[in-house]
Amino acid sequence: MIVDKLFEHVKERGHVCIGLDTDYSYLPEAYAKQFKSKAEAIYNFNKDIIDATYDLAACYKVQIAYYEAMGIDGLRAYSDTLKYIKEKGQISIADIKRGDISKTAEMYAAGHFSGDFEADFVTLSPYMGINDSIEPFLKYIKENEKGIFVLVRTSNQGAKDFQYIKDENGLNLYENVADMVEKLAEENLGSCGFSSIGSVVGATNNEESGSLRKRLKTSFLLIPGYGAQGGKAEDIKAYLINGNGAVVNSSRGILLAYKKENNGEDNFAMYARNEVIRMRDDIRANI
Amino acid sequence: MIVDKLFEHVKERGHVCIGLDTDYSYLPEAYAKQFKSKAEAIYNFNKDIIDATYDLAACYKVQIAYYEAMGIDGLRAYSDTLKYIKEKGQISIADIKRGDISKTAEMYAAGHFSGDFEADFVTLSPYMGINDSIEPFLKYIKENEKGIFVLVRTSNQGAKDFQYIKDENGLNLYENVADMVEKLAEENLGSCGFSSIGSVVGATNNEESGSLRKRLKTSFLLIPGYGAQGGKAEDIKAYLINGNGAVVNSSRGILLAYKKENNGEDNFAMYARNEVIRMRDDIRANI
Repeated sequence: MIVDKLFEHVKERGHVCIGLDTDYSYLPEAYAKQFKSKAEAIYNFNKDIIDATYDLAACYKVQIAYYEAMGIDGLRAYSDTLKYIKEKGQISIADIKRGDISKTAEMYAAGHFSGDFEADFVTLSPYMGINDSIEPFLKYIKENEKGIFVLVRTSNQGAKDFQYIKDENGLNLYENVADMVEKLAEENLGSCGFSSIGSVVGATNNEESGSLRKRLKTSFLLIPGYGAQGGKAEDIKAYLINGNGAVVNSSRGILLAYKKENNGEDNFAMYARNEVIRMRDDIRANI
Repeated sequence: MIVDKLFEHVKERGHVCIGLDTDYSYLPEAYAKQFKSKAEAIYNFNKDIIDATYDLAACYKVQIAYYEAMGIDGLRAYSDTLKYIKEKGQISIADIKRGDISKTAEMYAAGHFSGDFEADFVTLSPYMGINDSIEPFLKYIKENEKGIFVLVRTSNQGAKDFQYIKDENGLNLYENVADMVEKLAEENLGSCGFSSIGSVVGATNNEESGSLRKRLKTSFLLIPGYGAQGGKAEDIKAYLINGNGAVVNSSRGILLAYKKENNGEDNFAMYARNEVIRMRDDIRANI
């Protein structure tokens, strides 16, 4: 199961998931100018970041929206980035947050678990129903070493709109989602004890996180929001089980680390590497 | 506002939204073989369907998952299909069900309201929060003649997982979503009285639909599920206001109409046209 590989990466390298949410404006200007197109520049930037960090990262999360925004060329850069992550022996999480049903969901599963856009994990949105949205992905999880992360609780302001709506039993919507995800997770366990059916959970306060982790007993966690979005290392602790079972994503904090340095532009990849080390150690020191 | 154009189309031509959820297996075999690639065959099939129906349809809904499943080539066919819909003076709904926040949502808005994948409307998923998910799309609605349909209540079995969770006041989740969508809708009204902020609502029983329409006073409705998915014309009535304010999608029922005919393969576009007429009249006779 793919979750076993992710578990090993976390054990050996730490919890850092590098977010390749690469906007063209993030690239050093002189660097970007070398390339014929924005998409080509972004792919090469990603490649340089991967070259400088693949031995340290647990995995890479690629946010497809940034590539869709550039149309066909952008999606070619997306495809090439996923291929390069694989070439370096690394794990890719396609942050696609797709959520649809029946044949449409089958199409998304085929589209992101094979062909041009093949990734190791995808993120999924549960609004249309857990089983309907997830079912078409299960055969890839069981047969093709693939995995998913289902949106359970996000940490943006608007998350409160629905995720915290309480049902008649006093359970928040996100707790209902968590219970349903966990049920499927337990049917897809790796030998590490965690499941290839993971959850996306925001880093908030430890009390809530601890109680959520009690529901998500086996689900591997993808935790966005570290750094630029305000999440702190000490918020991660309550989500871990024996120090494992979660990866923590940082995007801008790593990609833009060079901007904090004098003349950082020429060595953006090195500064990204330094930031990954700093973040890895920050998390390790707080768990 | 784009909703005014949609309103006029419904008034003049009826309620049929043609779903171009075009799977390669739907194409007549001899037809498909003429083309160099699956994607090219699908684009040409779509083009022939559009040529045969553009004077009858209210709009076209293109389900991006079917194109993503074919990778880069598929998305080129998707892009070309959207361009052709525009060329024929028609309205496109990109069924993308994206749902994300802040800068990622901005990227989706840019990606689907400009460039290669420009459409007139997109569908959005609200799970991460109404304002966070929708806000980046508003400026296109106000300034660029664009519109959105937010997933409110779907009619699949799994919809019950979350959409029907009751809050402490006895309101279903989908009713909470509806109230929030309607609030934004009323701030983006066209001169027809409906809003460019629409809702996706499944066709179920009339009692529930009538009560949902009371909440969604101005939101234009996109109703999937007619025909192949079990929705009937008489289920539409409760959603209409003075006979307008909603489009009804059919995909397979139209694209595969030729399969019900002897030697239908040679005239698939004509049979699609006939089915659009039948469906239009079926709805008109039942409202």
